[in-house]
Amino acid sequence: MTETANRFLEIAVPAVTNLKPYVPGKPISELERELGITDSVKLASNENPLGCSELAKEAVRAELAQVGLYPDGGGVALRNALAEKHGVSPNQITLGNGSNDVLDMIARVFLAPGLESLFSQYAFAVYPISSQAVGATLNVVPARDYGHDLEEMLNRIGEKTRVVWIANPNNPTGTWLNGEELEGFIAAVPSNVIVVVDEAYIEYVDEPDYPDASLWLDKYPNLVVTRTFSKSYGLASLRVGYGLAHADITDLLNRVRQPFNVNSMALAAARAALEDQAFIQRSVEMNRAGMAQMTAAFEAMGLSYIPSVGNFITVDLGRPAAEVDQGLLQAGCITRPVANYGLPNHLRITIGTESENSRVLAALKQVLGK
Amino acid sequence: MTETANRFLEIAVPAVTNLKPYVPGKPISELERELGITDSVKLASNENPLGCSELAKEAVRAELAQVGLYPDGGGVALRNALAEKHGVSPNQITLGNGSNDVLDMIARVFLAPGLESLFSQYAFAVYPISSQAVGATLNVVPARDYGHDLEEMLNRIGEKTRVVWIANPNNPTGTWLNGEELEGFIAAVPSNVIVVVDEAYIEYVDEPDYPDASLWLDKYPNLVVTRTFSKSYGLASLRVGYGLAHADITDLLNRVRQPFNVNSMALAAARAALEDQAFIQRSVEMNRAGMAQMTAAFEAMGLSYIPSVGNFITVDLGRPAAEVDQGLLQAGCITRPVANYGLPNHLRITIGTESENSRVLAALKQVLGK
Repeated sequence: MTETANRFLEIAVPAVTNLKPYVPGKPISELERELGITDSVKLASNENPLGCSELAKEAVRAELAQVGLYPDGGGVALRNALAEKHGVSPNQITLGNGSNDVLDMIARVFLAPGLESLFSQYAFAVYPISSQAVGATLNVVPARDYGHDLEEMLNRIGEKTRVVWIANPNNPTGTWLNGEELEGFIAAVPSNVIVVVDEAYIEYVDEPDYPDASLWLDKYPNLVVTRTFSKSYGLASLRVGYGLAHADITDLLNRVRQPFNVNSMALAAARAALEDQAFIQRSVEMNRAGMAQMTAAFEAMGLSYIPSVGNFITVDLGRPAAEVDQGLLQAGCITRPVANYGLPNHLRITIGTESENSRVLAALKQVLGK
Repeated sequence: MTETANRFLEIAVPAVTNLKPYVPGKPISELERELGITDSVKLASNENPLGCSELAKEAVRAELAQVGLYPDGGGVALRNALAEKHGVSPNQITLGNGSNDVLDMIARVFLAPGLESLFSQYAFAVYPISSQAVGATLNVVPARDYGHDLEEMLNRIGEKTRVVWIANPNNPTGTWLNGEELEGFIAAVPSNVIVVVDEAYIEYVDEPDYPDASLWLDKYPNLVVTRTFSKSYGLASLRVGYGLAHADITDLLNRVRQPFNVNSMALAAARAALEDQAFIQRSVEMNRAGMAQMTAAFEAMGLSYIPSVGNFITVDLGRPAAEVDQGLLQAGCITRPVANYGLPNHLRITIGTESENSRVLAALKQVLGK
């Protein structure tokens, strides 16, 4: 196909013309058709292999009785439940169509051409994408041991810096910061710079000195903590996440929020899912066992990996992961090469059920000839 | 409560500081509790009183089997179905979390401070909101007979104009443009100005010379047509709409689209709903009968109204609608005052079922002392 210039590029705003054209990913059904398989295993997107709580499914079915009505644009019931869970006021909660949506609102409120967005190498892809979409300059700090170099991040904060993004644990590496490190950093950031702490994977972490940054909201008004229902809560299909912040920041985020950004099924399911902490416990326990299964197998194969506290593990294959990925796909195993994160030899694998893990590990062993 | 200044206003981008702080609306359950009623009738948001097709509900229930997985970010199955319906290529379709999301993407791609957004008085509220959120200047053209003054709109197009928004039929007035008027306008707009034709209510229109602007996409590459599943398709709760445009515009819109903006239940329900055109037919017929019921009652009460081709009607109460609205609420009838649209004496009422219409009309008669 001959590439021709996009005829509307010249009237698009400069920030958008610099964004990469969108290439839609293949749905699993199409991938399976291409590969001639029907029983693929997908451990690519850090989803919960157990799905979600039955209470959440039941809430969706019940909500269908009002399918024709717009969602509650204020998300009052869910915000009240989250306020209670976190011991904050409902006006400190911003609901998003996934936490992606909250991250995007932060960029729209605080970033613009000439302003700077600061984050670490190997950071979650949405930080640069949302920052670039509003024309901000990216300041990417080289990683230290695949994690955050907080000292250098502090050094890089300048007059133009408006938002600093930190995922704890980090995706795609699974690394994490302890309470002393992270709070020391936040305390040192100027109070007119927004610090985003993205806690998408918090429920999986089982380390005594791992911090819940939401407990620091009163101390640091420039702090925004984001959470999601897409991971341990197993509601990725429904799109719901939220931000916790000072009421003034929450006010600003809500000014750019689309009035019905979170759909009714998501509001109902998330609220019900909060009631079933036993489901979260089961999910976390399965993840712990699966993580042990994966790391033991990697060690047996002589593969090094980045120690992870999330529901995924990023393994160093010692050669270009793209080739290995092709072999895994032929075996019906969908995982995530992370060359786009600057890790061409690594593969990120979500922790699945025991049998899913076994199948991917067996395929990996075969493809690598171990 | 004492008003204190938002302490983060000074670091927010200027466009956002000029946006009004968000005030969440009350959910119906809360309103009912306040009013001490349990059986309110809501004819306020132009929703389908029949809900949605059973096929769509069934699709949602089936989709729950994959609740833990992220949506198909490309929306391939729905985009293919829509491409077939409209006789266009899938790469001419942009899916949105409601058409609101598509309108917002258009603003983000083509508008910025110093650029102009052009629309008519009494236009849908999202046009100014999305335009202001990116800092564009609003150029609001006075209405003619509650509808578009296309001649004056053309006159107002200048060097800085990037987007012109037209809803056909228009919300909140229900007015419409015929094919000759609308195509003549689009043909006269410079080819480097985007013309958005918002056809949210198209299925309800039963006028021989009402145009389907999507048929003109080949002729006018600067045309974007938006559609929604929130009205006649009855899927407002799920949030799904789309834009039809030249592939180059579609490429740009998708660059700012959040990768999983449309949730899995919405994708599945919309695709199923397309298969049930008999449901749309029933909805349209009920609307026609309800519109006749409403206008006959208004005439009997001596009230004038704006003739509407949508699923709502905007009636002139001859006095401030806010007072009348209070009376209607006491009677458990939720309708929509439109003072925020510059129509303080008008009330917009969605066409409901025969009994819903009767109840609202009886309450109106009583409150007005007719």
